[in-house]
Amino acid sequence: MSDALRVTVWNEYHHEKHNPIVAEIYPEGIHAALKAGLVARGLPQVRTATLDEPEHGLTEAALDATDVLVWWGHRRHDDVNDAIVERVKARVLAGMGLVVLHSGHYSKLFRSLMGTPCTVNWRAEGEKERIWVVQPEHPIMQGVDRYLEVPREEMYGEPFGIPTPDELLMISWFQGGEVFRSACTWTRGRGRVFYFRPGHETFPAYHQDGVLRVIANGVRWAAPTMAEQQAPANVKREALEPIG
Amino acid sequence: MSDALRVTVWNEYHHEKHNPIVAEIYPEGIHAALKAGLVARGLPQVRTATLDEPEHGLTEAALDATDVLVWWGHRRHDDVNDAIVERVKARVLAGMGLVVLHSGHYSKLFRSLMGTPCTVNWRAEGEKERIWVVQPEHPIMQGVDRYLEVPREEMYGEPFGIPTPDELLMISWFQGGEVFRSACTWTRGRGRVFYFRPGHETFPAYHQDGVLRVIANGVRWAAPTMAEQQAPANVKREALEPIG
Amino acid sequence: MSDALRVTVWNEYHHEKHNPIVAEIYPEGIHAALKAGLVARGLPQVRTATLDEPEHGLTEAALDATDVLVWWGHRRHDDVNDAIVERVKARVLAGMGLVVLHSGHYSKLFRSLMGTPCTVNWRAEGEKERIWVVQPEHPIMQGVDRYLEVPREEMYGEPFGIPTPDELLMISWFQGGEVFRSACTWTRGRGRVFYFRPGHETFPAYHQDGVLRVIANGVRWAAPTMAEQQAPANVKREALEPIG
Amino acid sequence: MSDALRVTVWNEYHHEKHNPIVAEIYPEGIHAALKAGLVARGLPQVRTATLDEPEHGLTEAALDATDVLVWWGHRRHDDVNDAIVERVKARVLAGMGLVVLHSGHYSKLFRSLMGTPCTVNWRAEGEKERIWVVQPEHPIMQGVDRYLEVPREEMYGEPFGIPTPDELLMISWFQGGEVFRSACTWTRGRGRVFYFRPGHETFPAYHQDGVLRVIANGVRWAAPTMAEQQAPANVKREALEPIG
Repeated sequence: MSDALRVTVWNEYHHEKHNPIVAEIYPEGIHAALKAGLVARGLPQVRTATLDEPEHGLTEAALDATDVLVWWGHRRHDDVNDAIVERVKARVLAGMGLVVLHSGHYSKLFRSLMGTPCTVNWRAEGEKERIWVVQPEHPIMQGVDRYLEVPREEMYGEPFGIPTPDELLMISWFQGGEVFRSACTWTRGRGRVFYFRPGHETFPAYHQDGVLRVIANGVRWAAPTMAEQQAPANVKREALEPIG
Repeated sequence: MSDALRVTVWNEYHHEKHNPIVAEIYPEGIHAALKAGLVARGLPQVRTATLDEPEHGLTEAALDATDVLVWWGHRRHDDVNDAIVERVKARVLAGMGLVVLHSGHYSKLFRSLMGTPCTVNWRAEGEKERIWVVQPEHPIMQGVDRYLEVPREEMYGEPFGIPTPDELLMISWFQGGEVFRSACTWTRGRGRVFYFRPGHETFPAYHQDGVLRVIANGVRWAAPTMAEQQAPANVKREALEPIG
Repeated sequence: MSDALRVTVWNEYHHEKHNPIVAEIYPEGIHAALKAGLVARGLPQVRTATLDEPEHGLTEAALDATDVLVWWGHRRHDDVNDAIVERVKARVLAGMGLVVLHSGHYSKLFRSLMGTPCTVNWRAEGEKERIWVVQPEHPIMQGVDRYLEVPREEMYGEPFGIPTPDELLMISWFQGGEVFRSACTWTRGRGRVFYFRPGHETFPAYHQDGVLRVIANGVRWAAPTMAEQQAPANVKREALEPIG
Repeated sequence: MSDALRVTVWNEYHHEKHNPIVAEIYPEGIHAALKAGLVARGLPQVRTATLDEPEHGLTEAALDATDVLVWWGHRRHDDVNDAIVERVKARVLAGMGLVVLHSGHYSKLFRSLMGTPCTVNWRAEGEKERIWVVQPEHPIMQGVDRYLEVPREEMYGEPFGIPTPDELLMISWFQGGEVFRSACTWTRGRGRVFYFRPGHETFPAYHQDGVLRVIANGVRWAAPTMAEQQAPANVKREALEPIG
């Protein structure tokens, strides 16, 4: 079933075109690196979409063909069209899976689904991050060791302005002294949402096996559970028992 | 401390002016009945605000003087100005308490804080509702018996399109055969949110002792916990330990 | 993978031998009905075990060959040997799945895993139960309609003396006026625990399709997630970074 | 109300009598330091009890006079009498508050209330611990800065073998590279349970203001919410509506 899972990786694809450091790490874009990582981990049906495409590449047709959407954005959150945010959100609520990566925490989409500011403390100086497994038995943690070590990363520190996660899977330790809830799940409507922290554009986290493994596992976990997408609705109902 | 708690009861105040049945039950409006109920239960500092007032009665000054906001709306959710919804939401995220009643489940404010559609199944035929206590030890349940019985009410049935509540305090049984999660809490940012189900405009639930007691307890529970309101923010931080 | 899932259905097998009403409904025992129901729903590898067998049929060898254990007990909870309860509990903590049915709520095993009394209000008079789906998107709810209707059942009412479930999937409505959290999940150590309410011995719930479907789904959900069982342990660790 | 709160601090009181390093830090015992810290923070009614007293100082009369019990144990968990563990557990389930400190994570009492092994990774070499606030709005976090820094402490690392906490309030960063869920709450029956990590016997954490403040706040939070203690029980009930 996973093999048949249709994944769309969305990337704002800005830094790669404007910052030579990023371009060197991700010459074809973060989306291309993520796509390659997913394909290499048994998910062959991966498409990509980026901000500057018409409708940001997120047309109704593209979403019809998407079981799980992966989201990376950072500098240009505000340039994402509100109507398209609403369109994508409606899909998540109806059952499409969503994996939000790194600075996607501050995207309109994620904040709208959470209902909170999703703010963080941060520092982008390239320090060591060690991401600890808190729930080793969770499906997303399979094949992951006791921790992932990312040699150089941006720091995100608590408090992370999210609602209490349904599940807290990993916690990061940063060399500079902070901690962060780095792998969290929520259900929103019929859809499953997974947030995973690493992936600052100036460091090569998306070329690292353990990081990609968690993302691939997260995509599989977020797969729709229902046979058909189904938007929650207010519905008037007849009584099942005599009343009055 | 509760005595000093400053409460604002917001009501769209529409049905009472257009439906004689409602006018008879709540001649001065649902907000007036709620205010009287809170005052009688040891919360003297209650103000009211309604949709048709300038800025819906929710000016910055009014919110400055509000520790906990109670919200009742139904027919005219769409007439609540988006900018005012954002203003009130920002206050909740910064620490103001919020108690959402009955059809307020479908208000812009509540849906925005939840991140989900907050839809229900429903039927307004006036049947018996029995609301069972699930967590008798919770502060909001103090002074409440094993259940509240409301003789005639609108039915709301599951699935209720909310995120998993932080706490589930009461579950309703309806004569017509349904059940509903009727008393739920969440934290959003620094603010506490309590949803409580009863209160259809054509039945006198807000004249009933047990219902008012839960609302008064809910107001006390939702009181700000921090000395000052504080909006979550993204903040850049220096490292606390040597890095690199 | 589910096809290969090795299930053991445990039953105290007492009422069937002493109460002719029960014997007529479950002539070969509740365990036999459950086994038949699971086999018919795509889980061919089902064994049974009962209280009066040596070691209650729960030898180390039997548990070595068990991925998910289903538990039904009622009258003779106290006759289950404490050492065997500890043995089974250790397996759950190390990753074996556990599905607890009906009056199993008061078994030593379930109470020990929950840490609470797991008490209920009850009445065994044979009334209608309607079990509503609260989270339609959950894997255990797939193939289940908006509700299950069980024509005659024992009543269990709130408060149910459990810790807050990790997930609340179904809530029961009873004709006599009560409600109950009837389908709940928890993780305990590396193991997954699913509680499902229906199944009083004097009514034929375990011959009903929807009930058996939920149990079969629950067994699949509770399947071990890790490649090997692994008991949590206190472990001394070397520092990963220089200290002092 | 807090002023009237009756607190009992329980300590196994072993290390202080056998290890001169500990005796120097806590000359009158860890319980005396905790008592002094609570009294100095507005909780005058504090008694102490220790392992070697008759019934470990936890007679029925002592528990009758206890609203919240604080628990510190380490080396001699196994010497705590099972019947007294059951007695204390029954009180918690009926509404008495419980604050479990540091190595109390592995006490019979805490493990029995959690239902899990409550295991940790550990290292007692005296490294820096920085305990971060995750939920600043929680009552237990009031008066606490963004983090507490404990200069020298034992390390506890994830995975911590607990059930998912109802609330996760603080996460520790350790100099040696690990993280830990250091401040967690649960409800068990009618009682509230708070676990707080710091306090290894060879370091002076219980002389540190921030640590004592969290403990004092935790004691206040864990205070009984109901007017009378009430053990959960199975109760037969008459139908409220006609059945059959």
